[in-house]
Amino acid sequence: MTGGGADRSHRPNLAVVGATGAVGTVLLGILSARQDVWGEIRLVASARSAGRRLTVRGEQVEVVALSEEAFEGIDVAMFDVPDEVSAQWAPIAAAKGTVVVDNSGAFRMDEDVPLVVPEVNAAAARIRPRGIIANPNCTTMSMIVALGALHSEFGLRELVVASYQAASGAGQAGIEVLREQTAKVAGTGVGEQAGDLRALISDTGPFAAPLALNAVPWAGSLQEDGWSSEELKVRNESRKILGLANLRVAVTCVRIPVITTHSLAVHAVFEREVTQERAQEILAQAPGVVLYDNPGAGEFPTPNDVVGTDPTWVGRVRRSIDDPTALDLFVCGDNLRKGAALNTAQIAELVAGELIGRATP
Amino acid sequence: MTGGGADRSHRPNLAVVGATGAVGTVLLGILSARQDVWGEIRLVASARSAGRRLTVRGEQVEVVALSEEAFEGIDVAMFDVPDEVSAQWAPIAAAKGTVVVDNSGAFRMDEDVPLVVPEVNAAAARIRPRGIIANPNCTTMSMIVALGALHSEFGLRELVVASYQAASGAGQAGIEVLREQTAKVAGTGVGEQAGDLRALISDTGPFAAPLALNAVPWAGSLQEDGWSSEELKVRNESRKILGLANLRVAVTCVRIPVITTHSLAVHAVFEREVTQERAQEILAQAPGVVLYDNPGAGEFPTPNDVVGTDPTWVGRVRRSIDDPTALDLFVCGDNLRKGAALNTAQIAELVAGELIGRATP
Repeated sequence: MTGGGADRSHRPNLAVVGATGAVGTVLLGILSARQDVWGEIRLVASARSAGRRLTVRGEQVEVVALSEEAFEGIDVAMFDVPDEVSAQWAPIAAAKGTVVVDNSGAFRMDEDVPLVVPEVNAAAARIRPRGIIANPNCTTMSMIVALGALHSEFGLRELVVASYQAASGAGQAGIEVLREQTAKVAGTGVGEQAGDLRALISDTGPFAAPLALNAVPWAGSLQEDGWSSEELKVRNESRKILGLANLRVAVTCVRIPVITTHSLAVHAVFEREVTQERAQEILAQAPGVVLYDNPGAGEFPTPNDVVGTDPTWVGRVRRSIDDPTALDLFVCGDNLRKGAALNTAQIAELVAGELIGRATP
Repeated sequence: MTGGGADRSHRPNLAVVGATGAVGTVLLGILSARQDVWGEIRLVASARSAGRRLTVRGEQVEVVALSEEAFEGIDVAMFDVPDEVSAQWAPIAAAKGTVVVDNSGAFRMDEDVPLVVPEVNAAAARIRPRGIIANPNCTTMSMIVALGALHSEFGLRELVVASYQAASGAGQAGIEVLREQTAKVAGTGVGEQAGDLRALISDTGPFAAPLALNAVPWAGSLQEDGWSSEELKVRNESRKILGLANLRVAVTCVRIPVITTHSLAVHAVFEREVTQERAQEILAQAPGVVLYDNPGAGEFPTPNDVVGTDPTWVGRVRRSIDDPTALDLFVCGDNLRKGAALNTAQIAELVAGELIGRATP
């Protein structure tokens, strides 16, 4: 049997919690396009969205409300919900024997929760004392696959990162606000007088200032000593995923007027000397990475060349002129796909493979 | 006597070469607004623009064509023209005894030409064997006043810089192309599918890829080992202005959809330990710098808050968590004003002061 009629009786059952959100929507598309390893796929959302019908694997599925019963018979649950919803409900699902793959920030730095990027540290997913596996923040994710490959060869010592983050990192509301603002500034002379953008745009939505024709050096909430939560996430999550507890990391996070796909300018310092050629070879061969690096022919990644694709794109690979152990790169990754939904799906598939392996020895 | 009827007979005479360009236009506004130290102000442009009448100091002045005679009786000439025009004409003007303040890239790295930012190295303007003083690239300029102040206290050792450069860095054509592209993407769903922006926009103007709702990691021309000319300018000019021949500098230059005002994320490493508080104090007191740094109240510079103003704005001042000798900052500077026209005017005024001092001992 094939397709919709496949015999799914011996396959693990999956729940998608937060199925109606920006990331959830991308996730249903990804689940429909990837090799199908799942029995039932149950769609879960807030009570407000219960009863809606969404398409996954070409089938209409009715959304059920988040409750303890929603996890009955479910082997793996992907969570794409706000931190506080994950904090409450992931342990409830885990207590029922469901393995939770969580995309919120609630558990990422929990010592008993692995933080997993399959191309970098797949083995970590097997040790999960709380029954929860965390998915990294989308900004960390945009660079970590490429850095993991370079680290394997050269030994990473320090990172200096500046981000160029897309509006959709703030969800569907971010996309809508940027589209509205872009329509408002089009055909105007805005951008030539201090504050003329603020005069035109009063609703900055999820952003700290107007974003169209602007750059906003802020993402997340204020933490100690002037750091933003987003900047600390990039530092702490990079250390955890790479297993480098003492990695030196300095990050400045900036939002720019791009709909989807985060970019990062990365200065990476290694234990050993690097060469441009060897770095390019490693990146060209690394799973999940596309090297797109021929500036003489106009070839370097831009967010719009990358949006909607799965890999991390890397260009502008240079050895630092004044430091033979450092590389300068420009990386782009779709923050809704690999940055969120795709990595969640990949982790869930790792768990599915483990469960199927146990069931059929 | 005051105003238009002022006795200007004992004042130095100024020529503005390239008076009709994007920077030239800003320059005429600046000359009209600043304290007036000039006798005649002669406006010079290509033969094509000769005969046009422009307003400066409230007076209509007819533009004359660039020629040897254009420098007769002129004490100081500001050049805002392409590199090859400066390369040809600045020495001609200098040979007639005119002190040239040049904003092109033609002479910046010439050992016999000082590269001057008055707040940082005003004294260098007095030693000019070729009779030419160079004005830095607008990207270097956007950060160097703030860094000069920090260097005086802590001793600068290394810079890692990522730029967020505005369209007007590529002149009037850059502004027009970004405005056209913004109008084209407004009201569309562009930004959700790889290449949908390239499909809509065929004319990328002075940029290497479509810029609206995008980020383009390229500025200038291709140099050795994958570096762009703009990135090398930031490195080499920073070293020369600060007098630090061995300063380590790594730069990635990126164009973003902003009309005017360059921003930079700067990671600066010093000889001595730094504190956030002392760094903020230094910046708050530095001439030509505005410290705007209270993220809890939504206070950090964005390009649109800075455009049209003179100073370098600095925010997001943080001591690096993993390096007590490093600071992370976000700086913004109007690339047409301090980044070009204003600094040129400031240098010319330094020379005017020197000439007046000689004339009236």
